[in-house]
Formats: sequence, structure tokens, C-alpha cells
Amino acid sequence: MIPEPAVSNPFPARVDKERHVRVALADRSYDILIGEGLLDRAGAEIAARLPGVRAVIVTDATVAELYLARLEIALAGAGIQTRAVTLPAGETTKSFAHLEATVDAILQARLERGDVVIALGGGVIGDLAGFASAIVKRGTNFVQVPTTLLAQVDSSVGGKTGINTPHGKNLVGAFHQPSLVLADIATLDTLSPREFAAGYAEVVKYGLIDRPDFFDFLERHRGSVFAGGPERSEAIAISCQAKADVVAADERETGARALLNLGHTFGHALERAVAYDPARLVHGEGVAIGMALAHRFSRTLGLCSGQDAGRVTAHLEAAGLPTTIGAIPGPRLGRETLMEAIAQDKKVSRGRLTFILTRGLGQAFVSKDVDPEAVVRFLDEELTP
Amino acid sequence: MIPEPAVSNPFPARVDKERHVRVALADRSYDILIGEGLLDRAGAEIAARLPGVRAVIVTDATVAELYLARLEIALAGAGIQTRAVTLPAGETTKSFAHLEATVDAILQARLERGDVVIALGGGVIGDLAGFASAIVKRGTNFVQVPTTLLAQVDSSVGGKTGINTPHGKNLVGAFHQPSLVLADIATLDTLSPREFAAGYAEVVKYGLIDRPDFFDFLERHRGSVFAGGPERSEAIAISCQAKADVVAADERETGARALLNLGHTFGHALERAVAYDPARLVHGEGVAIGMALAHRFSRTLGLCSGQDAGRVTAHLEAAGLPTTIGAIPGPRLGRETLMEAIAQDKKVSRGRLTFILTRGLGQAFVSKDVDPEAVVRFLDEELTP
Ligand SMILES: NC(=O)c1ccc[n+]([C@@H]2O[C@H](COP(=O)([O-])OP(=O)(O)OC[C@H]3O[C@@H](n4cnc5c(N)ncnc54)[C@H](O)[C@@H]3O)[C@@H](O)[C@H]2O)c1
Ligand SMILES: NC(=O)c1ccc[n+]([C@@H]2O[C@H](COP(=O)([O-])OP(=O)(O)OC[C@H]3O[C@@H](n4cnc5c(N)ncnc54)[C@H](O)[C@@H]3O)[C@@H](O)[C@H]2O)c1
Ligand SMILES: [Zn+2]
Ligand SMILES: [Zn+2]
Repeated sequence: MIPEPAVSNPFPARVDKERHVRVALADRSYDILIGEGLLDRAGAEIAARLPGVRAVIVTDATVAELYLARLEIALAGAGIQTRAVTLPAGETTKSFAHLEATVDAILQARLERGDVVIALGGGVIGDLAGFASAIVKRGTNFVQVPTTLLAQVDSSVGGKTGINTPHGKNLVGAFHQPSLVLADIATLDTLSPREFAAGYAEVVKYGLIDRPDFFDFLERHRGSVFAGGPERSEAIAISCQAKADVVAADERETGARALLNLGHTFGHALERAVAYDPARLVHGEGVAIGMALAHRFSRTLGLCSGQDAGRVTAHLEAAGLPTTIGAIPGPRLGRETLMEAIAQDKKVSRGRLTFILTRGLGQAFVSKDVDPEAVVRFLDEELTP
Repeated sequence: MIPEPAVSNPFPARVDKERHVRVALADRSYDILIGEGLLDRAGAEIAARLPGVRAVIVTDATVAELYLARLEIALAGAGIQTRAVTLPAGETTKSFAHLEATVDAILQARLERGDVVIALGGGVIGDLAGFASAIVKRGTNFVQVPTTLLAQVDSSVGGKTGINTPHGKNLVGAFHQPSLVLADIATLDTLSPREFAAGYAEVVKYGLIDRPDFFDFLERHRGSVFAGGPERSEAIAISCQAKADVVAADERETGARALLNLGHTFGHALERAVAYDPARLVHGEGVAIGMALAHRFSRTLGLCSGQDAGRVTAHLEAAGLPTTIGAIPGPRLGRETLMEAIAQDKKVSRGRLTFILTRGLGQAFVSKDVDPEAVVRFLDEELTP
């Protein structure tokens, strides 16, 4: 038997091992349901909250193949009329052209404001479908059915939607909260190990921001989370709760949400440096390296103990995630390339950089006063073989 | 001397004859300034409210020719860096393609959330630029500098922004309130008489909804409003206040805003029936005919006196606006065409239609229970030569 986790479970299950997280946003509050088989109960759950609606399902080709028919049957079973829009899989789908096509399909289906757009897929589909839902008739109802770990613990929570442009990622979009999130953890069984690990980096992030107990829990139960044991839904629920708490405190990202960028300053710079080539680096891998770097950089600055930084690196490595710049396949990335990418990502204020740093496990904070020279010296150290 | 209007002026001027209307929307409240020469003071007014911003001006070719240089000089004078995006004039500019181009230009200028997009032009530019401002980085600051009467009294107030699609007008958009509206009434001097009259239809609308004193005022001072006398800014200010009141009560158009559609059910049907050909009918002309029809229809239903309906028709005619379906140039419109267009516009509920009807001048109300047969009989009457 696995020993009881030190962190108590604040999410009593209603149906079997199902967990519920409430995102508290006044009249825009909503539930996140986390459990197995939610896909087949989607019709009932949606009809209970949005009686009489019609639906347009937006999905990608990979996910459609695996799960669209089941969702359609579930909706039909609850008397919900549906149409489906299937887009190509992959980040390039988050474009103006696909937005227009999606909007067109939703209008073609004559959806009204009170009807619902359902995103079935990963963060790409959630971001695009959510944005389409935000702007059709200035806002229709929206339901997320996230099918990647990243989408279940991060992108489906918080209401940020949007697309990419040639000027950068996620530069165009809207805040548009869903009415409901249905995270069917059984769908994660078909996810590639690499995508699962990438999403896991964001799970670890919540522990590292301000939940040291959760990090302990992950150290103890990583195996079960990866294998689909009971701790998987617990880890997802705690992650959703962590993000929901931050979102409730700062819906429109004016302050507290910044901590969610732990690991993302270095991470985004690395993604940019490899020109967003998923063969070299997917987002979560960038975040994993970024978090490891943020902790080692904090240690270099005398903020965080070497022991804590070491635990972070070890845990991510054990999860199959990269933790050094050198671990990225392909041509070696140089210090100049990275400094340029960092400068592009961040507004430089009075010559200082903004970073999420940490005083130890679960003690992250925003520093707007990082000396670029210190970053250069740190990168030189990291890049020395 | 023109006799004192019966309606007292609730808008004491700060600068000369300038009038200020406050749109009360909690933390999204803003001022509408109405007066002459505001274009030249735009830099100072914006800098006072949004210190340190940079700006992208969105305008159309016709308006750019007339007013862009003056606005740029005014902004430069207040130390505001600007870039301008000049789009073709006309309704077809409210498209996905022009939205993308505008968003691209705003990103190219590296505008941040705290910077400002300025719409310089009529309702087309206001709707498009406002929507672009709503979605770039999930929302930048926005300032309206409306240069048509319709934009000054209607489209620049209330935060509705958007574009058209092949499925219909204004079907895609966002609610995005401006930080400031600068209505320089001197710009109206270059507006074609036809466009001025079209905007005037919306002015009359506010009187007919619930301000009978304002309708009296317009009956008395129409000449001065058209000629640019002191009553022009008063009429515009009262109109803005009327719209601001409705918007404050119902920001997201869930109820009270419906009254603003007085004249628009018939009006939209007429616009659709002529396939939005501006050579035959512009929006305000459709609204004028629509308001005349709404009053005569209400009379037919025994709701409104023939005298009131007659005053409405007479006033609109005197303003150079059409008030009958027969007045639309080109092929005669038949009853079937119009009924189809009405059915397309409105959700039919239990076989009944929704119309804004009236019990007399300034006594409009929403009826969700109009018998389509009564509309058919009324149209037959109206279409009999
Ligand atoms: N809105 C937010 O707050 C937020 C937060 C973080 C990330 N994001 C966005 O999320 C996106 C990344 O999301 P993602 O990692 O889910 O990528 P994704 O949506 O591209 O999914 C990754 C791949 O997995 C496939 N897939 C999805 N579900 C599957 C399943 N159950 N079984 C097998 N294959 C499956 C997809 O077809 C895709 O090929 C990025 O665009 C990022 O910007 C948004
Ligand atoms: N957002 C809202 O709440 C709302 C309300 C009503 C109407 N609208 C929208 O407004 C649009 C119509 O607005 P509009 O009537 O202002 O049309 P418009 O913007 O097309 O302007 C009409 C014409 O006048 C020209 N023009 C503008 N200012 C001028 C000036 N000072 N001198 C000379 N020419 C000038 C323009 O170039 C254009 O050719 C429609 O798209 C409608 O959907 C929006
Ligand atoms: Zn991330
Ligand atoms: Zn109108």
C-alpha cells in the first residue's frame, strides 16, 4: 500500500473518485469536474447547467478520431443538437484563418448567444474555440473538454483564449470564462508520454509557486500520477484549484497571475530560440528547463538553497523532463541567442529584467529588478559543458 | 432670436459651448466631450487621462484626407507618439480581412495593453478599430473620435464593437468600452447632407423612445441642428446622455437596450431587402422609415394616436428623410420579400414576432407578442399606392 499523502484531500469525490473544483468569479463562477468517464456524461452535465442549448463542438483531427463520436453520442443522449468542426492538429491552427473558419462554421450552425461552443482537445483547440465563442455574437456560452494534461491543469482554467500572429504567440484574444470544464482523465491514456510529461511540468509548477506540500506529494506519488493511479486525479484537482485561486484573485491578469509564469521567462526564450520547433522542444519541456534554471539562478543569487534547487532538478529529470539547455536536441544554443530572446519576451524597465525567482520550494516571487549582467553570467555557467 | 427650448440644458459647458456626458459603468466609466475644436485638443485630453501612452490611429481614406494631419499634430503636441492605419471608406471595411490587417498594424507598432487605439471616423471605423483594440493583447485602451453624426450620437457610445460576416452584419465582435469619446461637432460640417440626415434619424429615435420633451425640442430646433447652431451640440449631448443611460442600465444588452432598436426591425428588413445597397438606402434612412412604420403600425393596432404618428412622419420628412417603403429608389419591394427579411432578423418565438411598438410620442415599449398576420395586413396597407 502506498502511504497516505501528507497533504489532505480537499476534494471529496461525488461520483466515485470524481473531484470538483469551483472557480469563484462572481456571476462568472463555474465548476471543473475531474474524473473518469466524464466524456460520456457530458450531455447530462451540460444539459443540467444550460438547459435547451444547441452545440458546436470544435476539435482537432487527432482527437476527433479518438473521442468525437463518444461526445456526440453523449450530447445526443441529452437531447443536445450538435455540429462538429474538425481542424488540423497542431499549434499552427491557432491562426486568424482558422479562427475565421471556426466562426463561420458556428454562424452557419445558427448558434445563438445562449447556445454553447464546446472545445474538445488540448490547449490549441481550447484557446481557439474559446476565442471564437467569445466573439460570435459578442459572446456565446463555452464549455471546455480538455484532453491533454496541460489543458486539464492549465489552459482550460482561467478564461484566457486567443490565437497566434506572425508577431508572436497569444497576442490576440479575449478573456472568456467557460460555463463548465469537464476533464475526463481517462482521455490522458492515449496521450503520448512526451505530451504527458510536458503537461506534468505545469503540475510541478503549482507546487513550486506556493504549495511545498504539493511538491512533496508529487515527489512521493509521481509514479502513480504517470501510471493513472488514484493520485492522478488528485494531482490534477490540486493543480486546477491552484490555478483557480490565482485566477479568482486576478481575473484579468493585472498582478498575482504573474507567478504562473514561473519557469516561463527562460522557457519562452528557449522556445523562441528553437523557433517553436516541437521536434526540439514542446512548451512544457521549455517550462521544465525554465523552472530548473529559475531555481539554480535563485541559488546563484543567494536566494534559494542548493538542496532545494537540486530537488527540483531531480524531480523533473525523474519525470523524463529536460532540465538543462544542453539537453535540447539540435544545434547548440548560445548565450547571445538566449539573451536576445529574453529581451524580446520581457519589457525591460530602466535596464532591469522581470523574472519569477524563488526563496526555496514553494516560495516563488516576482522580481522586477534583475540585473541583465547577472543573467549573462548565470547563462555562461549553465552553458559551460 | 430663437425662443428658449422647453427642455432645460443639463450639460453645463466647461469650455465655451462644450458639453460633457459621463457614461457610468463603475470602473469602466468614461467621458464623452462634445464641442468644436476637440480634434485639436485631443492630445491634451488623452494625455490627461492616459499619461505616457503611445497611439495607433485607425481611420478611413476619406476622413484621413480631412482630419488625420490635425489629429496627429494634436497628439504630437502632447508628446504622444503615433502611427496611423488608413483603411478604405465604406461598410465592406468591417471584415475579417481588414480586422486582421488592423491588428497586424497595431502589433507592428508594438502597442502594449496600456497604450491606446484611436478610432478617427464614422461607425465603420469605430466598430472595427474598437474590436481590434478589444482583442490585441486581450484589450488595449481605446479612444473614439467620431466624425459622423451617427457615430457621435450612437455607435461611439456603449462599447459595442464588431465586424460583419457573410452570415450577416455585426455578428462577430466584443463589448469594449472606450476610455474617452471626443465628438468634435465641427467635423460634421464636411459630412454629406444625406449622411447628416441619416444620423439625425437616430437623434430623433431617442426622443421617440422615452423623451417626448426632446422630440418637441427637435421639432422646434431642427433647422438650427442642421445648420450648426448652438442646438446642434445640445441635441448631440442629449442623445449621448440618452444612450449612456440605457447602456449604464444594461451594459451587455440583456434587456433594456432593446428599446434602442425602435425603428430597426422594419429598418433592418428594408436594408436586407435592398441587399445593403447604400445607393438605395443607408442605415439611418432605413431607421427613419422603420420609425414611421412602427408608429403607424402602433396606430393600426390601436396603441398610438394618429396625431402622434403623423407628427413623427412629418418631422422626419421635414428633415429630408424617407418615411415610406415606396420612397426607396429602385425596384419596388414586395410584401413577401419584407416578411422574409423580418423573419430572418428576428427570432420567432411560438410563432409571434418581437417589435418595438409605442403608445405615443416617447412611449415606446418592447412587444414580444406581435401577430405576423397583423404585420402582413399592415404592410399590404402601406404598399398600396
Ligand atoms: N489559455 C491558457 O491559459 C493557456 C495556458 C497554457 C497553454 N496554453 C496554450 O495551450 C497550447 C498547448 O496545449 P497542448 O499542449 O494541449 O497542445 P495541443 O492542443 O496541440 O495538443 C497536443 C497534441 O496532443 C494531441 N492530443 C490531444 N489530446 C489527445 C489525447 N487525449 N490523446 C492523444 N492525443 C491527443 C493533439 O491532437 C495535439 O497533436 C498552446 O497553444 C498554449 O499557448 C494556453
Ligand atoms: N457600435 C454600435 O453601437 C453601432 C451603432 C449604430 C451603428 N453602428 C455601425 O456604424 C456603421 C455606420 O456608421 P456611419 O454611418 O458613421 O458610417 P461610415 O463610418 O461608413 O461613415 C459614412 C461615410 O462618411 C464618411 N465620413 C466620415 N466622417 C466624415 C466627415 N467628417 N466628413 C466627410 N465624410 C465623412 C466616411 O468616410 C464614410 O464614407 C455601421 O457599420 C453600423 O453597423 C454601430
Ligand atoms: Zn505554460
Ligand atoms: Zn441604428
